[in-house]
Amino acid sequence: MPDNMSRPLIRVRGEGGASRHLEASVAEHGSPVIGILGTGDFSRSLARRLSASGYQVVVGSRTPKRSASLFPDEAEVTSQMEAANQADLLFIAVFPEHYSTLMELKPALAGKTLVDVSNGLRISHDGPSNAEQLADFFPESSVVKGFNTISAWTLQMGPRDGSRQVLLCSDNSKAKSSVMQLCRRMGFIPVDMGRLSSSLEIENIPLYLFPSWRIPILCTLLLFIFFYVYNFTRDVLQPYITAGKNTFYKMPIEIVNVTLPSVALVMLALVYLPGLFAAFQQLWWGTKYNRFPNWLDGWLSRRKQFGLCSFLCAALHVIYSLCLPLRKSARYKLLNAAFKQVKDGVQDAWIEEDVWRMELYLSVGIMALGLLSLLAVTSLPSVANTVNWREFSFIQSTIGYCALSMATLHTVLYGWNRAFDPAQYRFNLPPTFLLVLIVPLMVLLGRLALVLPCVALRLRKIRRGWEKSRHIRFTLPDEDCRNGLEDVSNV
Amino acid sequence: MPDNMSRPLIRVRGEGGASRHLEASVAEHGSPVIGILGTGDFSRSLARRLSASGYQVVVGSRTPKRSASLFPDEAEVTSQMEAANQADLLFIAVFPEHYSTLMELKPALAGKTLVDVSNGLRISHDGPSNAEQLADFFPESSVVKGFNTISAWTLQMGPRDGSRQVLLCSDNSKAKSSVMQLCRRMGFIPVDMGRLSSSLEIENIPLYLFPSWRIPILCTLLLFIFFYVYNFTRDVLQPYITAGKNTFYKMPIEIVNVTLPSVALVMLALVYLPGLFAAFQQLWWGTKYNRFPNWLDGWLSRRKQFGLCSFLCAALHVIYSLCLPLRKSARYKLLNAAFKQVKDGVQDAWIEEDVWRMELYLSVGIMALGLLSLLAVTSLPSVANTVNWREFSFIQSTIGYCALSMATLHTVLYGWNRAFDPAQYRFNLPPTFLLVLIVPLMVLLGRLALVLPCVALRLRKIRRGWEKSRHIRFTLPDEDCRNGLEDVSNV
Amino acid sequence: MPDNMSRPLIRVRGEGGASRHLEASVAEHGSPVIGILGTGDFSRSLARRLSASGYQVVVGSRTPKRSASLFPDEAEVTSQMEAANQADLLFIAVFPEHYSTLMELKPALAGKTLVDVSNGLRISHDGPSNAEQLADFFPESSVVKGFNTISAWTLQMGPRDGSRQVLLCSDNSKAKSSVMQLCRRMGFIPVDMGRLSSSLEIENIPLYLFPSWRIPILCTLLLFIFFYVYNFTRDVLQPYITAGKNTFYKMPIEIVNVTLPSVALVMLALVYLPGLFAAFQQLWWGTKYNRFPNWLDGWLSRRKQFGLCSFLCAALHVIYSLCLPLRKSARYKLLNAAFKQVKDGVQDAWIEEDVWRMELYLSVGIMALGLLSLLAVTSLPSVANTVNWREFSFIQSTIGYCALSMATLHTVLYGWNRAFDPAQYRFNLPPTFLLVLIVPLMVLLGRLALVLPCVALRLRKIRRGWEKSRHIRFTLPDEDCRNGLEDVSNV
Repeated sequence: MPDNMSRPLIRVRGEGGASRHLEASVAEHGSPVIGILGTGDFSRSLARRLSASGYQVVVGSRTPKRSASLFPDEAEVTSQMEAANQADLLFIAVFPEHYSTLMELKPALAGKTLVDVSNGLRISHDGPSNAEQLADFFPESSVVKGFNTISAWTLQMGPRDGSRQVLLCSDNSKAKSSVMQLCRRMGFIPVDMGRLSSSLEIENIPLYLFPSWRIPILCTLLLFIFFYVYNFTRDVLQPYITAGKNTFYKMPIEIVNVTLPSVALVMLALVYLPGLFAAFQQLWWGTKYNRFPNWLDGWLSRRKQFGLCSFLCAALHVIYSLCLPLRKSARYKLLNAAFKQVKDGVQDAWIEEDVWRMELYLSVGIMALGLLSLLAVTSLPSVANTVNWREFSFIQSTIGYCALSMATLHTVLYGWNRAFDPAQYRFNLPPTFLLVLIVPLMVLLGRLALVLPCVALRLRKIRRGWEKSRHIRFTLPDEDCRNGLEDVSNV
Repeated sequence: MPDNMSRPLIRVRGEGGASRHLEASVAEHGSPVIGILGTGDFSRSLARRLSASGYQVVVGSRTPKRSASLFPDEAEVTSQMEAANQADLLFIAVFPEHYSTLMELKPALAGKTLVDVSNGLRISHDGPSNAEQLADFFPESSVVKGFNTISAWTLQMGPRDGSRQVLLCSDNSKAKSSVMQLCRRMGFIPVDMGRLSSSLEIENIPLYLFPSWRIPILCTLLLFIFFYVYNFTRDVLQPYITAGKNTFYKMPIEIVNVTLPSVALVMLALVYLPGLFAAFQQLWWGTKYNRFPNWLDGWLSRRKQFGLCSFLCAALHVIYSLCLPLRKSARYKLLNAAFKQVKDGVQDAWIEEDVWRMELYLSVGIMALGLLSLLAVTSLPSVANTVNWREFSFIQSTIGYCALSMATLHTVLYGWNRAFDPAQYRFNLPPTFLLVLIVPLMVLLGRLALVLPCVALRLRKIRRGWEKSRHIRFTLPDEDCRNGLEDVSNV
Repeated sequence: MPDNMSRPLIRVRGEGGASRHLEASVAEHGSPVIGILGTGDFSRSLARRLSASGYQVVVGSRTPKRSASLFPDEAEVTSQMEAANQADLLFIAVFPEHYSTLMELKPALAGKTLVDVSNGLRISHDGPSNAEQLADFFPESSVVKGFNTISAWTLQMGPRDGSRQVLLCSDNSKAKSSVMQLCRRMGFIPVDMGRLSSSLEIENIPLYLFPSWRIPILCTLLLFIFFYVYNFTRDVLQPYITAGKNTFYKMPIEIVNVTLPSVALVMLALVYLPGLFAAFQQLWWGTKYNRFPNWLDGWLSRRKQFGLCSFLCAALHVIYSLCLPLRKSARYKLLNAAFKQVKDGVQDAWIEEDVWRMELYLSVGIMALGLLSLLAVTSLPSVANTVNWREFSFIQSTIGYCALSMATLHTVLYGWNRAFDPAQYRFNLPPTFLLVLIVPLMVLLGRLALVLPCVALRLRKIRRGWEKSRHIRFTLPDEDCRNGLEDVSNV
């Protein structure tokens, strides 16, 4: 083995797909040697990527002869001890539960940089993290956590596809710097996440399943169930119980199509409600330097998700509505109406008011949809990246309130004068659109209140740093240098 | 104060949420100290981000005791003078109008790097910029402009969300390099914008409100108004004036739905018109080395925006069209037609020509929409980034002209033989589709002319660098090494 | 010329747009000098970008006096020899066929770094590449391949728009490092592609025209043609031949609208079929360490394209379906039905079963579309970048199979009991939906088989590295450290 160690190995493809070792000097003598312990999928992709980026790769395996065929020809596959000896920077790509089996390498790894690429099995908020355990096992080595957020797939395809950010942390800033440089040379973008205590959080990242979507989706579902049951009771159950009319065929489409826009409008109003809460709280406190309660903070940071849920419901409502005339039931009803009109000898069925109501509420609805689509497109990350803060604020705030107003008007026009028709209060339940309008109208009124000159002026002062308790403060140069456009609760 | 300066401070959370200062040695001795002057939102987010990236942060405040509670525990909050003394690189996060209050720090800041993060209050094209004013105040410091395009929000969330580019400029390249390195370590991508004279432009960037969209949106609006008035006159006013027929109910939907496709088609043609102008101008000049007039340059660079406006109109036209059968007016008309058919005893109302016209123009319209959707999707920044120049050119040029041809054909099929029907010339106004077809047909004919072998060959020669005035030039190796695919006016 | 060489030149704008050379000392003495040989579009954009990034640029031209006016004022335009003498790093921006004309510069270029930015004229898989030819001409210089994937347009606009990745390769790692640093300073992200032998591939990249889309699009087209002819035969030809009924008007819309969903469903099933093949093959082999055959590998890596083709067909199917009631033919048929109903004296045409079938299959279809839209949105690169592997796998696998099940159910509900109606077997051809259902049902059954506990357990073991042939292996620490979520064939 010593003679092996003194000379680097490269492997060449033999005949018939087999490969054999050939002792030869590596062409690129100067390139640094990177070690990998472990021979799983991730190791193989990593080896390929490192080789492509001009590094010499040495893989440490328990069974080097059997593992060799799995690796690219440029990588040297050898024993774990030899890999530990050859490289100054090693990726530890073995299961965390097997870290202890690496103890025999302890002397060889002393003073070297170890990169822990492992993921946790489940989300954990109590340490120690895998990386901290590794650091405990090898106190004389410098442990850097990282690359666990990168998939073997991304490594293999190169960073052209998929995310390119590599989150790193370590207690040793020199080791961290060298891993950051390695990242950059592989085409990734390293992000310094600070000290090794951040490793628990970094290990959790790949395990999350849409954490910021949980509450918005739950909210959408609950609203959907509530409105569905409400509409079902009014539109299907009531006619069945009071008049024995069988309209259960309405369940898959018509009831859904009344429920969806209700959910969409309430969810859209919920996007703008927390911003109003925040503004009124700031006005009440007379300062912007108090922290919002946690529930409000959480709500503010999930407005995008609420908005997208609202858009999804609105888009489905459009599709459902457009499908209405395709249905057999619509066809039969139309034919029966034609039959009745002929029997009754009515030459012209035209009712001017009905025509106008429908034309107006359809056209307002389409405009609301158009504005919501603009909002949805600009919440795509790549589009959001191309607009500056002022443009983002204009779209999300100005266009957003326009969309909310349009959608509210759409609902009001749909309701027309039905709110005053006693026949609509079946089972004493008010028409759905009345319930739906409560939150949006509150939000629009609240917003109007904030636009009143006296309120608006005070709020602007507060957001530039003025405080009720110490008026003198505004004249000091301690303030923020930015012109207040980007206040988080402003959007 | 001297004893304070000699020992770094860290703060620890005390009991009950309160925090107090503790004299202690910082664990990470080696990490560089970054100063921040100012205590606004941006300062706080910056302090958090710098701490997370492994820097020691010292914040200079006029009122350090009161400000301390607003900052993360890892940051030291002290007097401005002390911050200026401790750090070699300082962020100046105070309002530009208060720069003069920092004059007392002048000796302490000499030889140090100052990062100006301020924004202007309004777009300005005359200097001096804030950064240049700062450089005037502190001639012995090196001023770097930057980070003003990054929001406090992006800083706080880390660069995983939002744009990651940090535009920097400075007259001192060493200072600039150190800020670039700092950027990278925070996970941002620094972009060198050259000397400090670029700072005015950098300060303007966050103030722009969709500058490249202004003309395309104005153009869309003007076309919309023109065609809306034209259609209103022909379809509503004329029947009302000549026959007293009240068809004002058509205003919200039907007139809009004739206007939108007109705007969409003309706007789509306007996407391809400037490319033709450019090509013909190059043919006329016999060289590609002359500059285009400014209006043509501006038009060429806004084609994407024209195209997206066209797509928006086309998409709205689709929604409006699909909503047509939902309307009460459509229902009443159908019922009345059924009544009439029964009264007249017509068993089969089928008119083969009408059926074919409608089937054809609908199917061609859907194809045009499909192609336009492909164009719209590939103009999303993240999709555009994954295609190479040849693919981009194929989509925008080949697919784009197909979409234009389809949309033109859709309009021609809609018109069918109405152009030759005198009854269509109400008030002597020709049918709308005739007006609409002028520009698209011109563009398609112009494009056909460029495809003629003799013209195409000459144009290709010109775009590879050939010039009419000096034929010899083409044989010199001074030419562009790329094969002409990416000519800007080619797309 | 020697006196020229000793002093750097800058040019200033003279009166009337003319420009003249002025001997002056450059303000930024310390900035490195970058040379560019060639004066094409790319050279000019490069010169502008390099100047903006703080470099001194010297352009070597055969005709420096004439070329000077084409370059920004900050760049010095001089003879090729002088440029070669002044700069240590030179971009070679001349046509590859003219490389030989640079031979006279050989002594001046010795020991310097040459960046080859050329593209090939056509895709080539046999060397030597342009960069290798350049390296042959100048064996004493270090050749770096790169920047050919960046368009002059991107260079000119700065890397804010378009892709920012610059693929580089070279046999000299020091030269490569200096070019990488230059890239970063210009705001690009360099990606190290290894040794100069990769240059052929890098030169091919800008020439590819959607290579990964070829097979999926071909597949879509073939399926479309097959189903179109099949439906045409059954729905148009058979009635015409057997009953003389002219229904050719169905060709542009109705036949297309039966064909599109067929293609969409089969394509969607083809997205999930290769994953099943892979899983069954792994179960059969008893290991995941065997390579899949090439056709399966290719299929697995093109699933996204298959899925997007399927989505496009599904979306077009929706538009076509929604257009159905707009058609004159639908109107005439409805009027005739009303006439008939009146003549027959049928007061109520309602058929409960038909109504339910239609309501159900429409609502299931809309849900399938909603799920497919989610899949399509998450395959946008910028969205895919924001989700972690677990989330991506959840969407593509769980949501994907839900969409497939929904779409299959949609088709089954459309078919209803027609499969058992002999009248549907025109020309002895079974109804289309029966053919369409074969592949999706196979995929769903295959997936169900994999969910059986005994099979699922074995597969999970295999994917964590267990092998049938050596049971002991699982206990060794040689395994992958990741928890198997990201297995490529899992999605």
